[in-house]
Amino acid sequence: MEVEELVERLRSFAQVRDWEQFHNPKNLVMALTGEVGELAELFQWLTPAESARVMDDPGSAERVRHEIADVLAYLLRLADVLQVDVVSALADKITVNEAKYPVDLARGSAAKYDQL
Amino acid sequence: MEVEELVERLRSFAQVRDWEQFHNPKNLVMALTGEVGELAELFQWLTPAESARVMDDPGSAERVRHEIADVLAYLLRLADVLQVDVVSALADKITVNEAKYPVDLARGSAAKYDQL
Amino acid sequence: MEVEELVERLRSFAQVRDWEQFHNPKNLVMALTGEVGELAELFQWLTPAESARVMDDPGSAERVRHEIADVLAYLLRLADVLQVDVVSALADKITVNEAKYPVDLARGSAAKYDQL
Amino acid sequence: MEVEELVERLRSFAQVRDWEQFHNPKNLVMALTGEVGELAELFQWLTPAESARVMDDPGSAERVRHEIADVLAYLLRLADVLQVDVVSALADKITVNEAKYPVDLARGSAAKYDQL
Repeated sequence: MEVEELVERLRSFAQVRDWEQFHNPKNLVMALTGEVGELAELFQWLTPAESARVMDDPGSAERVRHEIADVLAYLLRLADVLQVDVVSALADKITVNEAKYPVDLARGSAAKYDQL
Repeated sequence: MEVEELVERLRSFAQVRDWEQFHNPKNLVMALTGEVGELAELFQWLTPAESARVMDDPGSAERVRHEIADVLAYLLRLADVLQVDVVSALADKITVNEAKYPVDLARGSAAKYDQL
Repeated sequence: MEVEELVERLRSFAQVRDWEQFHNPKNLVMALTGEVGELAELFQWLTPAESARVMDDPGSAERVRHEIADVLAYLLRLADVLQVDVVSALADKITVNEAKYPVDLARGSAAKYDQL
Repeated sequence: MEVEELVERLRSFAQVRDWEQFHNPKNLVMALTGEVGELAELFQWLTPAESARVMDDPGSAERVRHEIADVLAYLLRLADVLQVDVVSALADKITVNEAKYPVDLARGSAAKYDQL
């Protein structure tokens, strides 16, 4: 429900501005790329330890929160135009990965861990 | 609730595999980048019109659904380790953007439309 | 020689600013990601046909030229710190791909064309 | 000359396979995104220190070298179809940045260092 509500607000936001003409999947994937790039810029010069403290500073916390929101926005728009239910898509993927990466074999190793 | 449930499944998935050591924000942003890159590869040679029909073929539909799930997975993991509530972050962002892009001025123009 | 000269100017640029401390490969890959994201933002709402005319407008031509330069800058910095000779790396890759994608089989089809 | 030779080999590679139809700037930017994503995947779980030793292992050195080559390939193809001279674009950018980041002010600080 909560995700569906965001999806509907985003759809309506685009509709009333006549921006649906720009929101084909190809364009939305590019827009998603751009937003992830902005997120990367916030972290690029930080050490891993610094990255873990990024929310301690109110200014950088706000920027990170905004960029995460932007990434989610385009991901939900993309899923909406493709009629993908993101929640069930991810739930299914987790189930698949639980089988793919058995706890005993995967423990503590990033070696074969290319994907979630 | 539904998002929180996914967040908890992902957290537990990492915990039991002792993968939390790899899940600092910097690493997760890079992993997000990688997944968005895989999504881009599915769309790179398609025309916008072809991209809109990508779900018609069961094989490509499955691949797109998986990649969208992977992007969401890392985005939720990132938000979790940063203690960002993605749903409220996006809800707030939409409210801000509704003021920033007034319907009358924004209609039909992508000109100043850098961000959602 | 011309690429080596750029590599040396970039190295010196970082050295005299004491920025080499930030230029480990992981950080440089993230910086590259950020710049490619900025490039993507310039093209995200354009149709393929519009993208082919992007240099007709002096303002957008300048932005595209700058972003391409930024991407190349971080790619050359990355290759430099890893001691990769980019020119020979690409020359070798083209030779490999000429064998991998025989002209007769590959002609006009993007089907199996995931990578250059 | 050496870059121009690579540009010409890449152009010819695309021409004889009739792949120029796919190589509009929008598509090439997406392809570049995909390749940078593959590069990010090689570094995502490494610490900065591990990333600095990535060439010590012959297998990972080979993968990194290939991905750097792929990124350069699409960057050069993009510049070619846009008729951008990448070498002079970057040389100009470095000159601009030398003025923008004076050595005395910039030394040792990544603070305002968003771009090279």
